[in-house]
Amino acid sequence: MDFIASYTGIIEKEIQTLDYPASPETLYLPQRYILESNGKRIRPILVLMACGLCGKNPDKAIPAGVAVELIHNFTLLHDDIMDQAVSRRGKDTVHIKWNVATAILAGDGMFTQALLQLHRLPDSVDFKLLNKIFLEGINKVCEGQALDMEFGDRLDVTVDEYLTMIYGKTAALIKVSLQMGGIVAEASNETTDRLGELGASLGVAFQIQDDLLDVLADPEKFGKKRGGDISEGKKTFLMVKTLECCTEKERMWLIGKLSDRPMQQDDVQTVIDLYENYGIIESAHTLMDHYYKKASDILNGFADSSYKRDLQQLINYLRNREF
Amino acid sequence: MDFIASYTGIIEKEIQTLDYPASPETLYLPQRYILESNGKRIRPILVLMACGLCGKNPDKAIPAGVAVELIHNFTLLHDDIMDQAVSRRGKDTVHIKWNVATAILAGDGMFTQALLQLHRLPDSVDFKLLNKIFLEGINKVCEGQALDMEFGDRLDVTVDEYLTMIYGKTAALIKVSLQMGGIVAEASNETTDRLGELGASLGVAFQIQDDLLDVLADPEKFGKKRGGDISEGKKTFLMVKTLECCTEKERMWLIGKLSDRPMQQDDVQTVIDLYENYGIIESAHTLMDHYYKKASDILNGFADSSYKRDLQQLINYLRNREF
Repeated sequence: MDFIASYTGIIEKEIQTLDYPASPETLYLPQRYILESNGKRIRPILVLMACGLCGKNPDKAIPAGVAVELIHNFTLLHDDIMDQAVSRRGKDTVHIKWNVATAILAGDGMFTQALLQLHRLPDSVDFKLLNKIFLEGINKVCEGQALDMEFGDRLDVTVDEYLTMIYGKTAALIKVSLQMGGIVAEASNETTDRLGELGASLGVAFQIQDDLLDVLADPEKFGKKRGGDISEGKKTFLMVKTLECCTEKERMWLIGKLSDRPMQQDDVQTVIDLYENYGIIESAHTLMDHYYKKASDILNGFADSSYKRDLQQLINYLRNREF
Repeated sequence: MDFIASYTGIIEKEIQTLDYPASPETLYLPQRYILESNGKRIRPILVLMACGLCGKNPDKAIPAGVAVELIHNFTLLHDDIMDQAVSRRGKDTVHIKWNVATAILAGDGMFTQALLQLHRLPDSVDFKLLNKIFLEGINKVCEGQALDMEFGDRLDVTVDEYLTMIYGKTAALIKVSLQMGGIVAEASNETTDRLGELGASLGVAFQIQDDLLDVLADPEKFGKKRGGDISEGKKTFLMVKTLECCTEKERMWLIGKLSDRPMQQDDVQTVIDLYENYGIIESAHTLMDHYYKKASDILNGFADSSYKRDLQQLINYLRNREF
């Protein structure tokens, strides 16, 4: 990822030097803890790149980038409680290391800190617009998470519903990242909208790929157990599509297994076999490629610059990621 | 409460007609549920009164009032999970009626909706300032909640520390309510600061009174069991002060009881007897009166108006409340 090292460096430095008070520890220590656990920082990098793409120095967008990264980590903190996840990026989750109450509160605090970051931007930036776009994006993330939870107990989720869910849960914040970069660069509404579309496509592609990596990735690199989504009964693209096109007998078997979670490892393998037999993995690849291509196509409409080349390289990098 | 019926009416109508989408239900139904459970709406009423006090039509401040009420309910949603409370205002808490994941998410959604409310204010309002004051207030609430949690395991909490805690947990949002009313009315910074001080004093008085009502109120009216705070080992003013001035023998007994929660009802009564024997209830009354008086004194500095009279009546009403 050499081509994005300069962006990552800026963001990492900003995040490590965030001016958190020392006390109350219960509020601030867990926020530092999750921020120090080396995420990919994709979202803030996108904020900076979008600002550069619109002809302004990406440094101008740093506070907006930090804001998005804080919101991303806020969602991780709360999602990990909801999903009862015990580890993230090789470390105990906050609600395991501390407790649920602390994790809820630290998340609330991060939400607040994220929004306060926007106050560090220069006065020339349309603060009200930026704040609105950001909040509407965050609400979409909440909607996506709610749908994901609702899908847990449903067996009739359609591919369209699945797309609506990931459009919120994953794509909304990536969309917002690009829009915010544009707004900080004082780009036209039309440009900001195009950036939003680019981000939404990238986000949908990213999530379908995440679904794929759950069954295809080397567990060592991916940092999660193979078929974890299956075992937890997640309604991924693969699962939704399989439930739609398998035989009635297979469907009955699947429903039985889905109602008794976590699924046994040999059952998980049987599900993966179903995915393969029905060409679902190939369909997922095709759909993912469609969205990655759409993102690239929108990017092509922008004037040439080093930022455009970097963003294209980032899209390629994400497309080829194995974790 | 006839004198505030007009304010309550406005707020109630606004809250009942909030434009929540129907879906996803998991996100929006619990938000509606907690909002429909008839709170006192003290904070939004304060927003409206402060706006009137500064010479503007209180109606102008309605979205700011709704924003504060939504944040208040967001804190209730999350605090109830943290405190493992099973009922609020005579209804099941959200995490009991649904589950913890739903309550966390609904709270996050309400936080977002609260901040979005500010976008409904007219353009003449200093949006950036309002947003900053609001967020800093919310962060103070998080700090207060964190301190409250930290105090749970401590036996050496001082009265000063207690005051810092309630200044965040309770007073910060009341302070913000009055400040926001002033900002919406486009009052001077000096006026807004005075309103903030008034709110902070009122909030501290309100919380000390809450501590008192826990042992003095008629459980029927107060809606909580007598001595609930004692039973849960809360570090109220009464408990902090008693730990400070009781004999070593009583202190040892108290520490033992505090480490084995919830406390038995006859032990709770013994603690109340300690409060009475050491004149702690009287001290709490004195301190509460000091803060209520401070709030009234600041109010006296404002030009006479019907809003000033209403606010003074509200202060008197709160001072005399029995629930």
